[in-house]
Amino acid sequence: MNSKYKILKFSSKKLKNIEDLVSIEEPLEISLKFKENDNWITQSLSITMRTPGNDEDLVRGFLFNEQIIENISDIDSIESFGDKVGQYNIQNKILATLNNAQNINISKIKRNFLTNSSCGVCGKSSLESLEIIKKNKPDPSKPQITKDTIIQSPYILRKSQSEFSKTGGIHASGLFSSDGKLLSSREDVGRHNALDKLIGCILKNNQLNVKNQFIACSGRLNFELVQKVLMNNIGIMIGVGAPTSLAIDLANKFDITLIGFVKKDSFNIYTNDQKVIVN
Amino acid sequence: MNSKYKILKFSSKKLKNIEDLVSIEEPLEISLKFKENDNWITQSLSITMRTPGNDEDLVRGFLFNEQIIENISDIDSIESFGDKVGQYNIQNKILATLNNAQNINISKIKRNFLTNSSCGVCGKSSLESLEIIKKNKPDPSKPQITKDTIIQSPYILRKSQSEFSKTGGIHASGLFSSDGKLLSSREDVGRHNALDKLIGCILKNNQLNVKNQFIACSGRLNFELVQKVLMNNIGIMIGVGAPTSLAIDLANKFDITLIGFVKKDSFNIYTNDQKVIVN
Repeated sequence: MNSKYKILKFSSKKLKNIEDLVSIEEPLEISLKFKENDNWITQSLSITMRTPGNDEDLVRGFLFNEQIIENISDIDSIESFGDKVGQYNIQNKILATLNNAQNINISKIKRNFLTNSSCGVCGKSSLESLEIIKKNKPDPSKPQITKDTIIQSPYILRKSQSEFSKTGGIHASGLFSSDGKLLSSREDVGRHNALDKLIGCILKNNQLNVKNQFIACSGRLNFELVQKVLMNNIGIMIGVGAPTSLAIDLANKFDITLIGFVKKDSFNIYTNDQKVIVN
Repeated sequence: MNSKYKILKFSSKKLKNIEDLVSIEEPLEISLKFKENDNWITQSLSITMRTPGNDEDLVRGFLFNEQIIENISDIDSIESFGDKVGQYNIQNKILATLNNAQNINISKIKRNFLTNSSCGVCGKSSLESLEIIKKNKPDPSKPQITKDTIIQSPYILRKSQSEFSKTGGIHASGLFSSDGKLLSSREDVGRHNALDKLIGCILKNNQLNVKNQFIACSGRLNFELVQKVLMNNIGIMIGVGAPTSLAIDLANKFDITLIGFVKKDSFNIYTNDQKVIVN
């Protein structure tokens, strides 16, 4: 499932307005209904950021792979509910009713699940909850960076990685000054961990100066990464891969300049292009 | 941080024994110690699969980005503890002591975190907990697949993706017969979701026949993906990217054949090569 976005593409040395297709990312809250001591209990189990479509398969596979059920026949029914959002009328809540309490690992449900901590989503639609919590927005117009800085930053970040050239399997995040100098970088097999490490390092060293800095990272740009950048009022986020719909929506709402698909001589500006100097 | 593994590399039409560097993936259990009503409380907050190194920065960034603390000065101390494991004497537990209960979002700690559900790790070292739960191993010698099937499977999977060519930002997982026919596939912006969707689809359609099937996926191979394959007794896992150390260790322990870095005329066999027919 994807959606059309109006973006600015830099290639062949100029900026063009184009329409681009972006993969949809939306939170799915998975709840379980099951019988314990003759009482029906409904419990929220997990929130995951997913591309809508085949949500029932996702719930089946999740419940089995996480060993909450022993057999697929332990599921009596699965139904989507909740407000329909977006152009595709997506429902972001789903309830699985289990029919055989004997086979269900209830203690595991209670002990090990509540919500998925990694995405910072907590029950409501993520954008709503963020709006309440976030007191400051990044500056909508600062810093400004040039096209050369954009194109070079992933290359500079990769050169700084001690691990990537050895294993080919590790992500990196870097803090740059707006004139393109790498200030700090961190690596991890998890993209979100690399960014958490970088932010922790920046905060510890009191290195943050958002009017003159941006963040670049390897890989794709999802909601979670943009959220972490937003939490620190950093106004520009650059990645070498594709962004998700929710990453773009979040960046747009908070005036973050989101740039993806950075290659040797091209890149895409998804939001707030006033921070980019092309000429 | 990386580790040397002895692997088999297929390239220039032959298999060679080589040593390869692999990024380390290990679970980190983050706990918090904080004061509530004059009592000190210690609580497990989250488990994340990370590359060891800069663990203190990871905890700082995580606590700030998840809005558990308001300022870095809310953290009094951070210390690693627990058994030292592996060749690098890694400690997989870390405790942050907070010094200012007024600034700490205790209700958020209690409401929103317990463990990270997405990796299936639950307090113990993951390999230990899996060993207890897992009753059956995949067959160590079946199915067998040829080098041509290995090389073609990521290409066939990508061709089947309705979304990738449009957005460039979506992962896929596919179930293949051992002679290389794609049986089912699913897509998602999250790798683990794509695999959960695929497994859910297979289980619903009663399509699983592990003696004659394997799974291929886009992207990198981490612990979580191999764990989901193991839960279904599937004996071969193919990916186009790099595996992590823990993915290899888990595959090795349960006789799964793990194949990564599949390119047009080369691939790496990380574990249990007896299922691969090269000639």
